[in-house]
Amino acid sequence: MTNQLLNTYFPAPRQSFFCSQCGSTIHRCIPDGDTRERDVCNNCGAIHYQNPRMVVGTIPILDNRILLCRRAIKPKYNTWTLPAGFMELGESSEECAIRETFEETGIRVKIKNLFTIIDVPKVEQLHLFYLANASNLKFDLGNESLEARFYEECEIPWKELSFHTVIITISQFFKDRRLGIFNMHHYSVNSK
Amino acid sequence: MTNQLLNTYFPAPRQSFFCSQCGSTIHRCIPDGDTRERDVCNNCGAIHYQNPRMVVGTIPILDNRILLCRRAIKPKYNTWTLPAGFMELGESSEECAIRETFEETGIRVKIKNLFTIIDVPKVEQLHLFYLANASNLKFDLGNESLEARFYEECEIPWKELSFHTVIITISQFFKDRRLGIFNMHHYSVNSK
Repeated sequence: MTNQLLNTYFPAPRQSFFCSQCGSTIHRCIPDGDTRERDVCNNCGAIHYQNPRMVVGTIPILDNRILLCRRAIKPKYNTWTLPAGFMELGESSEECAIRETFEETGIRVKIKNLFTIIDVPKVEQLHLFYLANASNLKFDLGNESLEARFYEECEIPWKELSFHTVIITISQFFKDRRLGIFNMHHYSVNSK
Repeated sequence: MTNQLLNTYFPAPRQSFFCSQCGSTIHRCIPDGDTRERDVCNNCGAIHYQNPRMVVGTIPILDNRILLCRRAIKPKYNTWTLPAGFMELGESSEECAIRETFEETGIRVKIKNLFTIIDVPKVEQLHLFYLANASNLKFDLGNESLEARFYEECEIPWKELSFHTVIITISQFFKDRRLGIFNMHHYSVNSK
């Protein structure tokens, strides 16, 4: 996804005004037997459900350091983040994590294990981060990144991190590293 | 979601033929700067992304037993499943798990912890199951369930279970119970 695309509709449209299947006008109502308002087409019967999305990324590890990217896109332009992005149809969360890391930084990673699972209901997202070993060091930045670099713990730009879920994930990583055991962790937060 | 709704479009439409924002005809193409084909509106600029969905449920525990429901809906009509359903906008996965369990069985649960996270890329889903304590015993079946009952391990109808992710989750539950430790588990499977 590029700046150019994000400038048209961001975030992607949630509410329908016309039926995507037949083009008729949409009615917002609670369908029979349902409990929530949906976008319903009275002409062809399509119900246009909307569901939360998954954002999946990695903590790319190299020796003692982890990889962060400086964002070239809104929101949180110019802040530092872990490589991550929206999960696509047909891929597993692990495949998404590898793809997003490569697209944003050019770094290829080998996945170790799922590390954090973070609910962010206010923005209708679930964030997943995998621990991963960086297997090359040749940066090739995608158009979502201004810069990428590996950071030691003492160098992390805590006040310039992009999202709450990134802060949680990085903090948990260093905590677990001190304990010598990396478990999976589930959180729920009010804002991403 | 009821049988009635499922009979119109099931699963919910993935591809767009008309723009949900302005009603114009959709073009299937790779937008500039993107790597995948999307449903794009050349009139208003909307890009209709589609992303995997989350299905969230519980393993409701009562003493030595767990709750299963016999499905009143397709797919897998008349097979036994854990209570679960599609995550809705605005709720956390934990809230979804509690809601789905109540809607399908009338049983209120108290969530203990996230237990299984299962990728099912072939059906564009991620399944999440929580361990939960059943806090009432008054069944009030929703229209997705023909029957609900608590099963001991030796009674589980293994050959009549609905989905691979349910089999994995229940098997892991009994395995962990024997070990006396319930950890989080991540799987990726080829079919739900």
